Amino acid sequence: MKPLRHFADDLANAIERVGNPVLVGLDPRWELLPGALNPGENANFEQRGQAFEKFCCQIIDVVAPLVAAVKPQVAFFEECGPAGMVALGKVIAYARQAGLLVILDGKRNDIGSTAEAYARGILGRDGQSAWEADAVTVSPYLGADSLEPFINVAEERGAGLFVLVKTSNPGSHMLQDQRLPDGPVYRRVADFVEKQSELTLGERGYGIVGAVVGATYPEQLAELRNAMPQTWFLVPGFGSQGGTAQDVASAFDGRGLGALVNNSRGINFAYRRPEYQERFGEARWQEAVEAATREMIAQLRAETLAGQIKLPFSPA
Amino acid sequence: MKPLRHFADDLANAIERVGNPVLVGLDPRWELLPGALNPGENANFEQRGQAFEKFCCQIIDVVAPLVAAVKPQVAFFEECGPAGMVALGKVIAYARQAGLLVILDGKRNDIGSTAEAYARGILGRDGQSAWEADAVTVSPYLGADSLEPFINVAEERGAGLFVLVKTSNPGSHMLQDQRLPDGPVYRRVADFVEKQSELTLGERGYGIVGAVVGATYPEQLAELRNAMPQTWFLVPGFGSQGGTAQDVASAFDGRGLGALVNNSRGINFAYRRPEYQERFGEARWQEAVEAATREMIAQLRAETLAGQIKLPFSPA
Repeated sequence: MKPLRHFADDLANAIERVGNPVLVGLDPRWELLPGALNPGENANFEQRGQAFEKFCCQIIDVVAPLVAAVKPQVAFFEECGPAGMVALGKVIAYARQAGLLVILDGKRNDIGSTAEAYARGILGRDGQSAWEADAVTVSPYLGADSLEPFINVAEERGAGLFVLVKTSNPGSHMLQDQRLPDGPVYRRVADFVEKQSELTLGERGYGIVGAVVGATYPEQLAELRNAMPQTWFLVPGFGSQGGTAQDVASAFDGRGLGALVNNSRGINFAYRRPEYQERFGEARWQEAVEAATREMIAQLRAETLAGQIKLPFSPA
Repeated sequence: MKPLRHFADDLANAIERVGNPVLVGLDPRWELLPGALNPGENANFEQRGQAFEKFCCQIIDVVAPLVAAVKPQVAFFEECGPAGMVALGKVIAYARQAGLLVILDGKRNDIGSTAEAYARGILGRDGQSAWEADAVTVSPYLGADSLEPFINVAEERGAGLFVLVKTSNPGSHMLQDQRLPDGPVYRRVADFVEKQSELTLGERGYGIVGAVVGATYPEQLAELRNAMPQTWFLVPGFGSQGGTAQDVASAFDGRGLGALVNNSRGINFAYRRPEYQERFGEARWQEAVEAATREMIAQLRAETLAGQIKLPFSPA
């Protein structure tokens, strides 16, 4: 039976609705939480988990009218043990109820039926899974039979995935850039992903198997856009990691679709950025979140005006 | 300050104490749980989580006197959402209290400070972390700066890690076996791991950075043992996946150290194996767990008698 939803179509429609491709990462870094939410260094894991839940839900309150999707980073929740995972479950549910698509950043992977357990647990709304995310990030080192279970479950449930292809960190050189006879390692993964996207195409021309491609390597981003015309990109590395609106321009197709540009720290902890510190201070951290989100949208719109990005909206 | 514990030494000592290198995987697969523990298809996640906890703790009761370590597979717990993660926390604590080393099979990875959050959350006993595992499995696709935070936290806390090098699944061919100018991709990872183990050596000649190398590729196992004399191996693929005692013989050093041989399904669900089904039946599933564990130990001892493996014990 064909599922009622198609993740790649949902994503295109949501981006057109809000008129921008910003993906807000949810990275509750304990040591950076604003004072009002931070129960102190001696807080136990339950208190930390509760603070994470509040912090992320209050970010969602601000960004839900502005963007299409959020990306909770599992690591920070998992750091707080079971209590953190309870908080993560609540944050995902809250984001969904706020009308956002939820991409769980877990970089999960395993083989065969174990990979299937991850996929079954994470992917699919409306009681189809325990976590009820719309998509998950997946690492490809284990190979095709570690990715296929995620693809199969996603297809069955109207969900999606993003496979690490060329990541934003300097260490991505160690394996991803190494040269095989027919090109770098990341191209081997890219070819697999594009083929799988072709096999799961929606009505908007994209498949449900996306790729993570960093903003910090603009040349590879452009190369991969050409090589993967049917694959959604999740582009990390914007902002704190140094990627600019110009760097990500080549990630988009002629309609301004095809890429989500993520910003986590620069939005979550905008109140600590010099330009917002004085203007808002720690107490008004939510206003800093809003300003930083709007600023990123404006930066991408400026590239649109410059003709570098065709976004699916008329620049204000 | 030098930590009081050293994971690689702890592992060597524990294996010598029990006299075998068997690692019991804890894979609570919902659909295979014995009837008495299985609250039925319509059970909610809390009931499933509780069943997983009981099942794993009852396995631990049986195997704690026999083996050195257990390896909970996070995927099956995570499949049950937050309730599953609560159960995982209890299972880890129970295993620790039973005197076992705990290797968390999460295949986690991320970059920089996010990888550090995983490491800080998972690694280290005695209140050093939320999960309090002794080691974790880690995936290397993101490169050196995704592995170093795990190594640093492990070193600081007397813990360890196992990096995926050459895995047991057929799909491992897709990336791991691909040929770079100086050898296959997995050798690139192997060289990094061996170097890191050299930098973190304990008194028994091994470092804290281990490698996952599958039993299903005996040639590569032998090749990597030679190339990585200071690295502990975690060897999956024994039993259900087809690996035999003979296949893993080359994973050991001259003292019978250097490798943990994992068996998950073949021990957890031994009551379903033809040879135990009639003898024990579903109700006596714990006796089947014990018989299967003892059988695997005996198989490895038989290889010892044949001179293929030097185990650190005198064969009974």
